[in-house]
Amino acid sequence: MFKNKLSKLIRDKNSLLSIGLDVDIEKIPKFLLREKDPLYIFNREIIEATKDIAIAFKPNIGFYEALGIAGWRLLEKTLQLIPSDHIIIADAKRADIYNTSKKCAEFYFENCNFDAVTVSPYMGTDSISAFLEYDTSGVFIVCLTSNDGSCDFQYLNVDDEPLYLKVARKVLEWDLKFGNCGLVVGATHPEDLSSIREIVPTIPFLIPGIGKQGGNLKYSIQYGTDNQASAALINSSRNILYASDKFNFAEAAREAALELNDEINKFRIQKNEFLT
Amino acid sequence: MFKNKLSKLIRDKNSLLSIGLDVDIEKIPKFLLREKDPLYIFNREIIEATKDIAIAFKPNIGFYEALGIAGWRLLEKTLQLIPSDHIIIADAKRADIYNTSKKCAEFYFENCNFDAVTVSPYMGTDSISAFLEYDTSGVFIVCLTSNDGSCDFQYLNVDDEPLYLKVARKVLEWDLKFGNCGLVVGATHPEDLSSIREIVPTIPFLIPGIGKQGGNLKYSIQYGTDNQASAALINSSRNILYASDKFNFAEAAREAALELNDEINKFRIQKNEFLT
Repeated sequence: MFKNKLSKLIRDKNSLLSIGLDVDIEKIPKFLLREKDPLYIFNREIIEATKDIAIAFKPNIGFYEALGIAGWRLLEKTLQLIPSDHIIIADAKRADIYNTSKKCAEFYFENCNFDAVTVSPYMGTDSISAFLEYDTSGVFIVCLTSNDGSCDFQYLNVDDEPLYLKVARKVLEWDLKFGNCGLVVGATHPEDLSSIREIVPTIPFLIPGIGKQGGNLKYSIQYGTDNQASAALINSSRNILYASDKFNFAEAAREAALELNDEINKFRIQKNEFLT
Repeated sequence: MFKNKLSKLIRDKNSLLSIGLDVDIEKIPKFLLREKDPLYIFNREIIEATKDIAIAFKPNIGFYEALGIAGWRLLEKTLQLIPSDHIIIADAKRADIYNTSKKCAEFYFENCNFDAVTVSPYMGTDSISAFLEYDTSGVFIVCLTSNDGSCDFQYLNVDDEPLYLKVARKVLEWDLKFGNCGLVVGATHPEDLSSIREIVPTIPFLIPGIGKQGGNLKYSIQYGTDNQASAALINSSRNILYASDKFNFAEAAREAALELNDEINKFRIQKNEFLT
């Protein structure tokens, strides 16, 4: 089961850290461009330097897709670098009518062996159920995002509550049936995470927006984790990957990852102390 | 401009027909499996047999992505088969935070030369603007879908109207700024198309759900086209592609396409007669 794997990892490694592998040729250290396969070398070094700190890696599929066939090859090779005792999340934000979603779920879960995928809720139950039917895999449904545009629809008022809470309520239904739901909730609105947590007390949150997007870590932990300061993944991408553009980039990424996870754990301890 | 190209095509070829290239190894005629590249041969024969009837082809990206690297190669080769006087739509249903959407838009519009792409609205303005900034390309925003799950969120009541009308209103804003918006509106709720048309009188609709999904053609034309029975693409996929699983599959596809376009034009004439 996906949730068991996640909670065991959180406990065993004392970490909520997910690293987003948003690999970008324009951002990696220039000296790597002399290599035959610079993006692969970059991913390899980042994964090697951080795999004992992070419990999840999240390739942002858009960045690989953008490279065409070379990108899918890079993704395939990158996946082989990630040890199996990690959660690997395809940040794909997919969902379409059932028969298309089914193809997509087959690809990500069966062919690529991802542990989890992110999906977009707008098309409703049958667009998501094709993913949920893989009951050993995780499905993180986009609920409240970290970008400015989150205000356009997610905050619209439906029966006296914002739309994103309706999404959370629907996800609770799906989770009761399938047992493998998660939610994507952005760290830029940390105070709004508490109302989502009330609806789904135990469902794992994938929390992006820490770092470049300006999310507030303390309140994300306080409101976004469950009642044991667990059941969440805090994702950071650019702040870790591009911590340095020099020869020491992997070491700098490791330091950034360590520092972030220490911060996370400090706030988890604060929350646990408050609860006991 | 995308809209000019579309309206010129509709006028010159007297057609609203889009054919969805949802190519599936389990559904193509068995005899093709003896070929070295059966899916490519299938697409080639379908495009050849229907290109004088259809004005648009819409590869469903999920079906290609599901095949891994071979699928992207197939897509690349298939795109080369479609004459440039057609609209080619990437049915991708993408959208993410701006920098990811930007990568995606670059890939579909610059690298692959698609004329248009479908995107999902939930993440709001900055997740879509990366696509809209390509002002000669079309961006079809998912508004009201043809699947059962459309009821879960799209029909939620916001300020006394369903959420999908809020999406239409936001798209109108985007269109006033960028000028290249379209809407995806499913044919399974044809009566609901009229309320969307009231909000966006001239924006092109991409209307899937005709055929296997049981959409109602007559009312889709009546309510989904503009006041000249134009500004819409009626998409059919499986009913045309898999009209026959015998040697005559391409001919059967051609007949199905002709028959559908004749039906479409019959209803367009009825609408025009009613309007004059």
